[in-house]
Amino acid sequence: MKKEKLQGITVKKKDNFSEWYTQVISKSELADYSIVSGCYVLRPSSYFIWERVRDFFDKKIKKSGVKNAYFPLLIPEQLFNKEKQHVEGFNPEVAWVTKTGDTDLKEKLAIRPTSETIMYYSYKKWIRSHNDLPLRLNQWCNVVRWEFKHPIPFLRSREFLWQEGHTAFANNKDAEKEVKEILSYYKQVFEDLYAIPVIEGKKSEGEKFAGADYTLSVETFLPSGKAIQGATSHFLGQNFSKAFDINFTDKSGDKDHVWQNSWGLSTRTIGIMVMMHADDYGLVLPPKVAENKVVIVPIYSKENKDKIMKKAIELKTKLNKFDVLLDDRENYSPGWKFHEWELKGIPVRIEIGPKDLAKKQVVLFRRDNHKKENVGFVNLQKKVEVVLEDIQNNLFKKAQDFIKKNTVEVKTLKDFEKATKENKLIKTYWCGCDEDKIKDEYGVKILTIPFDQPKKKNKCIFTGKEGNLVYMAKSY
Amino acid sequence: MKKEKLQGITVKKKDNFSEWYTQVISKSELADYSIVSGCYVLRPSSYFIWERVRDFFDKKIKKSGVKNAYFPLLIPEQLFNKEKQHVEGFNPEVAWVTKTGDTDLKEKLAIRPTSETIMYYSYKKWIRSHNDLPLRLNQWCNVVRWEFKHPIPFLRSREFLWQEGHTAFANNKDAEKEVKEILSYYKQVFEDLYAIPVIEGKKSEGEKFAGADYTLSVETFLPSGKAIQGATSHFLGQNFSKAFDINFTDKSGDKDHVWQNSWGLSTRTIGIMVMMHADDYGLVLPPKVAENKVVIVPIYSKENKDKIMKKAIELKTKLNKFDVLLDDRENYSPGWKFHEWELKGIPVRIEIGPKDLAKKQVVLFRRDNHKKENVGFVNLQKKVEVVLEDIQNNLFKKAQDFIKKNTVEVKTLKDFEKATKENKLIKTYWCGCDEDKIKDEYGVKILTIPFDQPKKKNKCIFTGKEGNLVYMAKSY
Repeated sequence: MKKEKLQGITVKKKDNFSEWYTQVISKSELADYSIVSGCYVLRPSSYFIWERVRDFFDKKIKKSGVKNAYFPLLIPEQLFNKEKQHVEGFNPEVAWVTKTGDTDLKEKLAIRPTSETIMYYSYKKWIRSHNDLPLRLNQWCNVVRWEFKHPIPFLRSREFLWQEGHTAFANNKDAEKEVKEILSYYKQVFEDLYAIPVIEGKKSEGEKFAGADYTLSVETFLPSGKAIQGATSHFLGQNFSKAFDINFTDKSGDKDHVWQNSWGLSTRTIGIMVMMHADDYGLVLPPKVAENKVVIVPIYSKENKDKIMKKAIELKTKLNKFDVLLDDRENYSPGWKFHEWELKGIPVRIEIGPKDLAKKQVVLFRRDNHKKENVGFVNLQKKVEVVLEDIQNNLFKKAQDFIKKNTVEVKTLKDFEKATKENKLIKTYWCGCDEDKIKDEYGVKILTIPFDQPKKKNKCIFTGKEGNLVYMAKSY
Repeated sequence: MKKEKLQGITVKKKDNFSEWYTQVISKSELADYSIVSGCYVLRPSSYFIWERVRDFFDKKIKKSGVKNAYFPLLIPEQLFNKEKQHVEGFNPEVAWVTKTGDTDLKEKLAIRPTSETIMYYSYKKWIRSHNDLPLRLNQWCNVVRWEFKHPIPFLRSREFLWQEGHTAFANNKDAEKEVKEILSYYKQVFEDLYAIPVIEGKKSEGEKFAGADYTLSVETFLPSGKAIQGATSHFLGQNFSKAFDINFTDKSGDKDHVWQNSWGLSTRTIGIMVMMHADDYGLVLPPKVAENKVVIVPIYSKENKDKIMKKAIELKTKLNKFDVLLDDRENYSPGWKFHEWELKGIPVRIEIGPKDLAKKQVVLFRRDNHKKENVGFVNLQKKVEVVLEDIQNNLFKKAQDFIKKNTVEVKTLKDFEKATKENKLIKTYWCGCDEDKIKDEYGVKILTIPFDQPKKKNKCIFTGKEGNLVYMAKSY
């Protein structure tokens, strides 16, 4: 039996957040570094979460009428360059294929950093009349953005997985309705699956997508004292449809360019979940994204092994719908197993030893708050169900409380400056004045202009002019 | 209302197979050409089929203990070059990233043509002892193989989607058991979903995977007179584990290299399905992979429209579980609709007009054999269920009959030559003699050495030595 202690997390979340995050990610076996700098391996436990998110979101968009498709990975340079703002936004990060085998290509090919250009090339061919609209396609795929900023697993990786929806409508009204609809699904992914509260709103001009009329997003605020953009839904207006000449004949026979949206959610969300919920013992998985919601650890000696294992197997069958793991490894001690499953974030642990067996009960341990209680065999299934729901809700509430506690509303520049130094989520008022200057001077950016606005406008803290409520913070 | 006739398939399958195939693929809107030569767009109808196949196969491998993961797209040249046979097999087809933004990379990166090398780099890190084995991972992803042969949508495209399973075991026995297990799942994908009979067997030395000890495959034979490899399951032995030094300590404390498999199934399967089942009217979808198994086409005039539509909607609800389409487009005639859904391969069409309504019946049209019959409202749901099952079986049987009819067993070189000229699937005997020579002289290759062998060996038709039963044909 392994006597050495499991190598757990050796730094505290509050002491060294970035080292703590790196340790959680690798020691819980969520992800691993690859041989290519900035590219990571999604190990089974994180890929499972992604599958869960995919299935959840996929169901919603399919019900809404979106269809999945798949477009080529490689985009010829000329096509990529068609929309001016877009190419300026992405060019510095593009990975270029210039050679196949030993042959140099005549025109270099971009690995998609996003697929507007390659998809809209087809949209132009497919869309002729209002009968072809709306066209609402989505793809689940990988993209490459060769950023030179410090990479962070999940949050900023040079390749990541995402879905990208690309839709075309006959009028702006329908398009703008969809942009909001999709954002509401993103909110559900965060709040209902990941147990993370988000703020819905519109990005400022300086932060919108390269090529969009405007960008909607969901944002949250993390225990590192930084905010993060969770997912985005862009109203592209007619910017791309004009650049790609995607036009249609409407019911009265007139020609117009289509109105477009694009929207995306990525594996970045997994990193956000880790940063929000994980603790000094390792990962904490919200039950709704946990592959195994329960692990049973039997505690036995040679004499009573058979009896204990028999009961453990029986309980496993009984709790089948929670995708229970039974850790029956011979060469690890119960203590080692406890630590390992805490590190891996399994929501509920059930311990069963000889004393428990005699009392017809188990010890039930909750990963979220480290509380233990005895539960009788008879009530176990029901109890586990209730506890899992409670864990899901509790994680959401904890995150909500954390965000609330770290949000300050400021109305003066002095308070604003103080709040930026204290790494707060800042609620304040902004008239639309120079964003770059704010970023340079205070190190924070405008995260979002939330949908939820006060009835009356207020004075912008920078200019004194009339301004909207905005959230600002340091951010990833 | 559109008066012009729908542009259907203008050549016959038996007259010009390759033009026919191209037309079916594009006119049924399965796939489209992209701006990049040899890369295709998977439109929603083909992507749906891929999702169906994915879910089917994914369930099987997960039940068997395989987990999904995701490894980086880009592989550094040095790593890619580690296994000699492997790199020789793939090098000429590799797409190389040499630049990111405006910066030249120090070491060029291969877009994965397959992921052995990038995955086994991690396997080396993760595998220490027999406790870490078996390691059985799979990924669903895109790969790029920049072939210079004439590209064919689905069958030979420069990017395609697939799953690649990569597993490591403590001994060859367990590995070889899995290779066969996976092959049986591939057989089920073809036979149970796609309604295509396949032959299971082992590839010849000349046709095995670059880096494998041996390759198993499922093969089939198509109405073009060519055979095709459907999917492959490779026993890699210790070739990669030695090249990557993936070793483990066994129970007795000795070190050994792991035994490995890799196995893959791709979107090529969709093309095989089209070639096998589609006809001169367009696509024919086996019900098990059809998104919409039934389409209802209402036939009405101004006077009776409301009544007919009311019934049509009622029927749609009743047949809900078959994912029914109700084609209520105003500006297309019933005739146009009939042709369009035939082109798109929907298994069952239900027509309902005023006469049908009066008789409380519909006309049920089967896409596979073009037969029509009247079915009373009362029996409709049951009838559709039976008909769909019958279509699935009938397509399989038709394919089986076709293959049987085009298979010849030859025992002399003269008969062999004749059969190659007649584009037959040839059953014959082969001792293992020079494959390249056979290919050069007769234009056919050894497809497979089938599992199903006669009790007694027979004389090789090329050398007269003792040989195994093999299948040979022209092939894709």
